[in-house]
Amino acid sequence: MDFSLSPALLALQERTRSFIAREVMPYEHDERNTRHGPTEALRIELTAKARAAGLLTPHASADMGGLGLSHVAKAIVFEEAGYSPLGPVAMNIHAPDEGNIHLMEAVATEAQKERWLRPLAAGHIRSCFAMTEPAPGAGADPSMMTTTAVRDGDHYVINGTKWFITGAQGASFAIVMAKMEDGSATMFLTDMDRPGIRLERLMDSLDSCFAGGHGVLVFENLRVPATDVLGEIGKGFRYAQVRLAPARLTHCMRWLGQARRAHDVALAYARERHAFGKALGEHEGVGFMLADNEIDLLGARLAIWHTAWQLDQGSPGNIESSMTKVACSEAQWRVVDRCVQILGGRGVTGESIVMRIFQDLRAFRIYDGPSEVHRWSIAKKLMAPQQRQGNAS
Amino acid sequence: MDFSLSPALLALQERTRSFIAREVMPYEHDERNTRHGPTEALRIELTAKARAAGLLTPHASADMGGLGLSHVAKAIVFEEAGYSPLGPVAMNIHAPDEGNIHLMEAVATEAQKERWLRPLAAGHIRSCFAMTEPAPGAGADPSMMTTTAVRDGDHYVINGTKWFITGAQGASFAIVMAKMEDGSATMFLTDMDRPGIRLERLMDSLDSCFAGGHGVLVFENLRVPATDVLGEIGKGFRYAQVRLAPARLTHCMRWLGQARRAHDVALAYARERHAFGKALGEHEGVGFMLADNEIDLLGARLAIWHTAWQLDQGSPGNIESSMTKVACSEAQWRVVDRCVQILGGRGVTGESIVMRIFQDLRAFRIYDGPSEVHRWSIAKKLMAPQQRQGNAS
Amino acid sequence: MDFSLSPALLALQERTRSFIAREVMPYEHDERNTRHGPTEALRIELTAKARAAGLLTPHASADMGGLGLSHVAKAIVFEEAGYSPLGPVAMNIHAPDEGNIHLMEAVATEAQKERWLRPLAAGHIRSCFAMTEPAPGAGADPSMMTTTAVRDGDHYVINGTKWFITGAQGASFAIVMAKMEDGSATMFLTDMDRPGIRLERLMDSLDSCFAGGHGVLVFENLRVPATDVLGEIGKGFRYAQVRLAPARLTHCMRWLGQARRAHDVALAYARERHAFGKALGEHEGVGFMLADNEIDLLGARLAIWHTAWQLDQGSPGNIESSMTKVACSEAQWRVVDRCVQILGGRGVTGESIVMRIFQDLRAFRIYDGPSEVHRWSIAKKLMAPQQRQGNAS
Amino acid sequence: MDFSLSPALLALQERTRSFIAREVMPYEHDERNTRHGPTEALRIELTAKARAAGLLTPHASADMGGLGLSHVAKAIVFEEAGYSPLGPVAMNIHAPDEGNIHLMEAVATEAQKERWLRPLAAGHIRSCFAMTEPAPGAGADPSMMTTTAVRDGDHYVINGTKWFITGAQGASFAIVMAKMEDGSATMFLTDMDRPGIRLERLMDSLDSCFAGGHGVLVFENLRVPATDVLGEIGKGFRYAQVRLAPARLTHCMRWLGQARRAHDVALAYARERHAFGKALGEHEGVGFMLADNEIDLLGARLAIWHTAWQLDQGSPGNIESSMTKVACSEAQWRVVDRCVQILGGRGVTGESIVMRIFQDLRAFRIYDGPSEVHRWSIAKKLMAPQQRQGNAS
Repeated sequence: MDFSLSPALLALQERTRSFIAREVMPYEHDERNTRHGPTEALRIELTAKARAAGLLTPHASADMGGLGLSHVAKAIVFEEAGYSPLGPVAMNIHAPDEGNIHLMEAVATEAQKERWLRPLAAGHIRSCFAMTEPAPGAGADPSMMTTTAVRDGDHYVINGTKWFITGAQGASFAIVMAKMEDGSATMFLTDMDRPGIRLERLMDSLDSCFAGGHGVLVFENLRVPATDVLGEIGKGFRYAQVRLAPARLTHCMRWLGQARRAHDVALAYARERHAFGKALGEHEGVGFMLADNEIDLLGARLAIWHTAWQLDQGSPGNIESSMTKVACSEAQWRVVDRCVQILGGRGVTGESIVMRIFQDLRAFRIYDGPSEVHRWSIAKKLMAPQQRQGNAS
Repeated sequence: MDFSLSPALLALQERTRSFIAREVMPYEHDERNTRHGPTEALRIELTAKARAAGLLTPHASADMGGLGLSHVAKAIVFEEAGYSPLGPVAMNIHAPDEGNIHLMEAVATEAQKERWLRPLAAGHIRSCFAMTEPAPGAGADPSMMTTTAVRDGDHYVINGTKWFITGAQGASFAIVMAKMEDGSATMFLTDMDRPGIRLERLMDSLDSCFAGGHGVLVFENLRVPATDVLGEIGKGFRYAQVRLAPARLTHCMRWLGQARRAHDVALAYARERHAFGKALGEHEGVGFMLADNEIDLLGARLAIWHTAWQLDQGSPGNIESSMTKVACSEAQWRVVDRCVQILGGRGVTGESIVMRIFQDLRAFRIYDGPSEVHRWSIAKKLMAPQQRQGNAS
Repeated sequence: MDFSLSPALLALQERTRSFIAREVMPYEHDERNTRHGPTEALRIELTAKARAAGLLTPHASADMGGLGLSHVAKAIVFEEAGYSPLGPVAMNIHAPDEGNIHLMEAVATEAQKERWLRPLAAGHIRSCFAMTEPAPGAGADPSMMTTTAVRDGDHYVINGTKWFITGAQGASFAIVMAKMEDGSATMFLTDMDRPGIRLERLMDSLDSCFAGGHGVLVFENLRVPATDVLGEIGKGFRYAQVRLAPARLTHCMRWLGQARRAHDVALAYARERHAFGKALGEHEGVGFMLADNEIDLLGARLAIWHTAWQLDQGSPGNIESSMTKVACSEAQWRVVDRCVQILGGRGVTGESIVMRIFQDLRAFRIYDGPSEVHRWSIAKKLMAPQQRQGNAS
Repeated sequence: MDFSLSPALLALQERTRSFIAREVMPYEHDERNTRHGPTEALRIELTAKARAAGLLTPHASADMGGLGLSHVAKAIVFEEAGYSPLGPVAMNIHAPDEGNIHLMEAVATEAQKERWLRPLAAGHIRSCFAMTEPAPGAGADPSMMTTTAVRDGDHYVINGTKWFITGAQGASFAIVMAKMEDGSATMFLTDMDRPGIRLERLMDSLDSCFAGGHGVLVFENLRVPATDVLGEIGKGFRYAQVRLAPARLTHCMRWLGQARRAHDVALAYARERHAFGKALGEHEGVGFMLADNEIDLLGARLAIWHTAWQLDQGSPGNIESSMTKVACSEAQWRVVDRCVQILGGRGVTGESIVMRIFQDLRAFRIYDGPSEVHRWSIAKKLMAPQQRQGNAS
């Protein structure tokens, strides 16, 4: 057992931390931060800085211009990136592109990689992942998918509506999940400027850290050539799992950085602000919240490291990533909620970045499976008879 | 002991409920709902409807055109008003005007009432209450006030900065708290268009239910004639308590309405949305949240009724209103947080009014004293030696 | 709406409080307090005192020698009785006798009343209620009952095993629930010294406040004459509900007294014990717990009063008593758990009565339906389509 | 970073697990389990089994007959030992002996080691650690110590009262903390059969896993030769820290085993017990509790491993062990409380070992510093100006 980080990883951590502090955080009050995330112009300016610093798309393979980070290395680097809500966009490791890059490296053809993955990994374009649907379609339960793909010669014809599609606005291409006639699902790659795709509208959302915000996409007889199927026909749900276990974990990493940031802001305020005769943090009511924050942050970090290590060992990590997703999203939320409380009025206004982090983080208890769905799935595995034959009585 | 409502009060409850549903809720998607609350035009349109319905400023005395509601009656009516985030503005019972009306009825001179209170109670103008200051001034601890009033002939000269001043933008007059040379505090009435007052800026805030939002006010040699002192010189802190105990409670009432609304929205969704083979609400994970909501809503309502009844009996109600403020703000917050979770993606977007309620409600755990300050104050009273001589051992 | 108590009720409250403090609490360290509750000798000594004070079986009708208390009056008196773990036994209002008296007054024949109810109400004998069964029988789900009653001439023959039967040891008679051949259930009255009844063993339990503890009862061809059926054949489940809604509520009342007692002990300790330079209770970490205790105690009391009032109005009170049972058991548990924490080492030892209250109270979250079963039942009612047609959107 | 265990450690883990299951758990219903822990006869029988299995006192140095386990190795072995409440006693790694062995290996003289440590490590005798005092003495705040040691020739004369002294009954020797005339504290070694020491009484306590229970010790002119000072004069508080940081952590380890046991019992029950038409664990209300248990158990384990690893690296580990102590005691408590709830009636009776674990575990939130004292201490470190200069804003 060893909790130490290699000198190379420590150096990368320090380099990322410094990059975020010096190059990214000054942009947090830039007017190009909109309710629907940083504008494309801001994103391009930020990614240029990461490129110059050698920190762009670090999770991509060396072949794709990245650093080929292991899951453990991502745990270190992504937490640092998340210290600013703009960090993941700057370093091209934000959702959904980060997960799309991961998935495409695993299952795309060479031609598909050259056409879509290479410019994506280079930060020149963005992508989206079109899976979630409005009621009565696929939400937390993907089996309810209503978008269909029907074979027509050497094309597939896709019809349906997707929503909550992060980054749809401004994306160059999409990965689209659709149901086949046999009930299985398939993933398709498609440029966004094809006829048959329409961004119906943007959705207002609590969070504002995602480039392009969240949109509603309508597919009306979208024709996709068979060569643009991602991976194999009928394996959509399986690929979604391949994508999700690590994608869920990278959410934990990035938002751990945001939570740590909120805590640092609250701690600084608790040191300098006085009330009722002493510094805020010297009041046990506040000091205990700070202590619980430290405990929660450490617990979240250890859970992430442990699951990342298991993924690096080749474990599929499904139950671990479910457990870590629940543990982290709930713990990080508690941290940020306490920070708001410590900051008082400041915490519920734009005077502090904590309000923005608070808004960004709430959705994490829902994205990539609400805590309840994960608990349900963990329980199901526990109840399976072959599991955990402890020597209980 | 009797939990029944009089027929007259039941009728008023029903009338308010129906008014909100028919006349106010249709405006919830009106574009004049801004981040800084409903615009003045929207407010005027809404108050006209309440006036027509005989439901404007119902807590004001009959002399001032109101219904002279008791605290218990307010509990019933304000909860119904709060069922829409726009309800309190429509009925002229929103903060800070509601509390200002209450305070001015108690301590203003006849001339002051005619000049400021009457048009305020009639819904023609708005007011603000300038007490809170940025660090290192008066926040949760009012004794740290830095704004000063110095006598100069038959005027007082006021200097200082106030922030988080709800409704400052668009207000016709303000009640200003300032510190005297002897350390006591005084309240002053002043028109907002006087020289020496400046609205420096609006603050971005999580909530958007307050007309005029929240602003930063700067006083530079503001000259207020001695006749515009509200009540007596040096009694500012005492009046603040007079204002706060009931004002805190009306917050509980209005936000109980919002929380109940969120619960109704979540319940409707839990009935109609299906996942994993049945209606959401038939999953215990969701059903238990709905059950806890019912329990929390009822608990909040009973706490409000109990404290309102005590105020009606003539109790100052300070410890009770502190206890009820903590109980309600925390319970209502749990309710709304659960509703967001039940709604999933909808809950964190503008697709549902719940996101707006979620944002409005977070600040309630801070406004009018954070839960921690109330716990501290309750504990202090408990520790006082004369208190609660139980027969413990 | 009126939260005041009548002068007569206030006087009864004061009389009960004083009785508990002077006559009952001195017995708390009597050696006849055993792990399985007070011995019969101690019980007789205590009930004699209550009889002398005119406080024995106050919930029984005047005809049966009681005071005919309303549910609201019970709320006041039972809370005071519960201030000592011995109070309910002393006043003959402990479970299960209290509920049995209530049920028998409602459905027993005159002959049954004379034979069993009168001496029970007089405190001369005890009874038990035999419903719960070990797995795979009836626990939280009564429909799984395995004990059977089969007609044989003018008798019924009962076979089965019951457990967790409070007060079985030392009881003079039992009310036995058994399943009929048609799947319905019936309640039977039977003396405990009949052949065919055997107390197999006592169960060790966390609590020690019930006279006779909890036992396992075995019925082997127990013959009960048809005249000893309680109420009508086949109405057992319905009567169980008649018994349970108020019985559940009286649990809330008595245990509220215990929780208040624990709080008073913790408060006294927090005032006198010093650590780190000041009284414990002056540390916010402790003071906040005391404040939350006050809030929880008041919330529990109001929930009880509200439901008691509804029962007095003739409401069946099922959903209300479920909500109140969850709210009270959870709130009272939080209170007692905090008290243990405040008392530190004392709290987990017999140095303080709080350890005993802690052990008594844990089971309340399970008795008369675990919180989870009540949440499930509340949710089910909420999901029923006719319920709560709020004007949500 | 590496979460794997060495083959040797995995083998030791498996050997311990098997030993506990085969040799120790059968004794759990032995009548020699008393309210004050296993009797000396039972302890001797159990330690003989551990000796035969090569698992006695594994944390002691090889010189003292142990396996010289690192902190990380202890984390693995002690969790397995704790799977039975009797396991730590059997393996001679229970409190306070385990910590006393650790401390004496660090600071005792060779003569002291031969006289006291060797037979202790061999499991032939037991010891106690006399620090805590009744009010107004040293509890959570050790600076309030009232027991005094005064030099008299080549002896020290000790006077005072200690309580909550685990294992005092039956101990062969004690480590006694006493205050010197200069306000510092010193630790003394003394046989328990010396004149001047009296075991006044045993204390009833919730827990029953400690051999000898907890007692009150009175020192009246106890004369201790200067050669029996443990370590140096005046370093008592420092040694207490040396002892406590790891001792606290071994509590976390052992009780993690108990919590895991409770969870396995609850899981087995949730699989086999049916209610309302399906297995308990298939109800989300129960399944979610099982899932949260898994999350809490894993979180506690990772926190322990992390702190153990830091201690192995030479870190004093004070803040880490404080954080881990809070995280583990609270998480393990939640687990056991949920298990009680899942088991329903069984959970609050001796039908299941979970009741015993529930009683054992409650005190852990208080022993070795209540959670509140640790939060206070963590907060104090956070507020120190040199700490954690994050790049927040």
